[in-house]
Amino acid sequence: MARPIDPTDLTADLIRCRSVTPREGGALGLLEAALTAAGFECHRADRGEVSNLFARWGARGHPKSFGFNGHTDVVPAGDTAAWTSDPFGGAVCDGWLWGRGATDMKSGVAAFVAAATAFVTETPPDGAVVLAITGDEEGDAVDGTAAILDWMADEGEHMSVCLVGEPTSRETLGDMMKIGRRGSMTAYFAAHGVQGHSAYPHRAHNPIPALARLVERLSAYRLDEGSQHFDPSTLAVTTFDTGNPANNVIPGLCHATVNIRFNEAHSSDSLSDWLRAEAARVTEETGTTIEMEVKVSGESFLTPPGPLSALVASAVEAETGQRPEISTSGGTSDARFVKDHCPVVEFGLVGKTMHQVDERVEVAQIEALTGIYRRILAGYFNGSAALSG
Amino acid sequence: MARPIDPTDLTADLIRCRSVTPREGGALGLLEAALTAAGFECHRADRGEVSNLFARWGARGHPKSFGFNGHTDVVPAGDTAAWTSDPFGGAVCDGWLWGRGATDMKSGVAAFVAAATAFVTETPPDGAVVLAITGDEEGDAVDGTAAILDWMADEGEHMSVCLVGEPTSRETLGDMMKIGRRGSMTAYFAAHGVQGHSAYPHRAHNPIPALARLVERLSAYRLDEGSQHFDPSTLAVTTFDTGNPANNVIPGLCHATVNIRFNEAHSSDSLSDWLRAEAARVTEETGTTIEMEVKVSGESFLTPPGPLSALVASAVEAETGQRPEISTSGGTSDARFVKDHCPVVEFGLVGKTMHQVDERVEVAQIEALTGIYRRILAGYFNGSAALSG
Ligand SMILES: [Zn+2]
Ligand SMILES: [Zn+2]
Repeated sequence: MARPIDPTDLTADLIRCRSVTPREGGALGLLEAALTAAGFECHRADRGEVSNLFARWGARGHPKSFGFNGHTDVVPAGDTAAWTSDPFGGAVCDGWLWGRGATDMKSGVAAFVAAATAFVTETPPDGAVVLAITGDEEGDAVDGTAAILDWMADEGEHMSVCLVGEPTSRETLGDMMKIGRRGSMTAYFAAHGVQGHSAYPHRAHNPIPALARLVERLSAYRLDEGSQHFDPSTLAVTTFDTGNPANNVIPGLCHATVNIRFNEAHSSDSLSDWLRAEAARVTEETGTTIEMEVKVSGESFLTPPGPLSALVASAVEAETGQRPEISTSGGTSDARFVKDHCPVVEFGLVGKTMHQVDERVEVAQIEALTGIYRRILAGYFNGSAALSG
Repeated sequence: MARPIDPTDLTADLIRCRSVTPREGGALGLLEAALTAAGFECHRADRGEVSNLFARWGARGHPKSFGFNGHTDVVPAGDTAAWTSDPFGGAVCDGWLWGRGATDMKSGVAAFVAAATAFVTETPPDGAVVLAITGDEEGDAVDGTAAILDWMADEGEHMSVCLVGEPTSRETLGDMMKIGRRGSMTAYFAAHGVQGHSAYPHRAHNPIPALARLVERLSAYRLDEGSQHFDPSTLAVTTFDTGNPANNVIPGLCHATVNIRFNEAHSSDSLSDWLRAEAARVTEETGTTIEMEVKVSGESFLTPPGPLSALVASAVEAETGQRPEISTSGGTSDARFVKDHCPVVEFGLVGKTMHQVDERVEVAQIEALTGIYRRILAGYFNGSAALSG
């Protein structure tokens, strides 16, 4: 029997793997070895330049399969000199573990790997535990969790429910879990005019006023009032640029970017139609041609409160003493892919330092998170039948 | 007696001087030598890093002093490889002289130097001919013609009237002269918000919609309908930038630039007041602080049609057969400094290729321009007394 996995040591080992998207950096290899030693069957579901790891304990396609999802890739360290500690050193100091990925989310992966291996070793369940771990969540994510799910469908692999281990807590471990996310899309506008000298504006056609009118109108629009489980949809103009170096030249072209986070009152299609109509209206009013391209990061989704969220909330409460708020806030996550396959919720530690210099996590928090994941597994396999399927 | 100056040869020699602003490049030294040889008294009125040349034939402070103003500095050649001919080669081919400054305005300077030296040599007038030639018109111009005029005031030097030799003709030599210019000013706006993640716009304060509202409002405003001698004032938004590289970040700051060309219905002060009030109104409406800085290139000015413009028009008509249209169009010129000292008009050749790759001028046009300047001098000193004083 393999030695139990210490989740803090495993997090530190993972931090030492320089797995900046899309580099695998040894992180998935490390996990594959540990999981194989604990009796998991491992498969690589690589796609494109991305490495992905699928691991299962128990029978393939078992109708009672609990899934965990997470990622080992990290965003770049940024200004390494600004870090107190080596971002890829994995040092522990005064009860804190430092490094890129300490919160997002090498600790989450280490916690569910430690919980799952200990659980199946000590109390082998009548069912399966499935881990879907990707090397590309921070990047385009098209060859990441989506690729694992495609591979699973091809191979007859199954998850009955899934927990994504992203950091979801706000201030203290356990204060928030997520049962859905708003959708996210970005519209890129290009307004086309005719360049000219600013002394002769009638010989030019300035595209700036038209684009300014469009973004001001879009900004003023109230998309909805929110709903039972969702905040109001929001629209933010994030860029507006001419890149014109000369103050005496009217530019021929300018660009703006609009990012929309939307709830279930909308879809990326309905919003694209609306944006296109608003752009066309400004074109009609001003004679300035405005082109639009749209990139959809994900549609909104929701796993309505039910047995899975109740199971997670109870485990959190048992471990931490507080019952998590159920939320759909925040950006996108890979749960947007999982939700097409099974009920999915997200729970993880406090993500305050994620993507920042001096990203770090309390060792006690990693241990508590491992305890929560362990309780979730116990509750799933030993509890009510409502969650199988 | 010095050999007569050939204006085409002199233009070519000047083109070979690499006098890109603020470099003198040998151009003023060349002119100083030629003018001294022709009996002109020369002084350098240098200021800062700029070289300027003052030259006078006749008595200092003579009440009948005809002035010419021009510049020998040029804008950079840009992509040298794109030129058909070396931009600093001064080659003549098929009746055209090629090079940076061929139209703006080494040819104009050469023409008035050739005309003035020939005129005072062959028909010495009862009066003075004054040349104010600067090495900085294309740059900030603060140490250029303005410095010569300051120096002249200190030294008791005088111009009764002045002709600026900038290219003013549109299609054919002589079709247009200028008796004034609109003013020009640039306002730089900075809108201050609070940076944040686009998924949480309520925690940020996006400055883009406020600045968009401001520039759209300013663009829609009609400043005036024009007047007898002036086109309508115009306003052009020339830049709008966030410089934000991330589509998921609401920027904390954005900038816009507005350039106004204004006639005598306005001053830079009255327009600054208006812009400041409009910015304050948007701040009031949106809570976004908008700061403004203003740079004034020049106020509008006019030498009303009278004896000077009539003299120039007659000379043009005698030489070319066409009477020039009297205009105030175009950008600023150094006439904006001269107008505080004496009546000033502008006349020169066709400027179509100015500031462009393959700038060039017809040799015949330089010769005709020299003839026109010669006729203007003859008319001034032999004609009516209306222009002295
Ligand atoms: Zn993450
Ligand atoms: Zn010029």
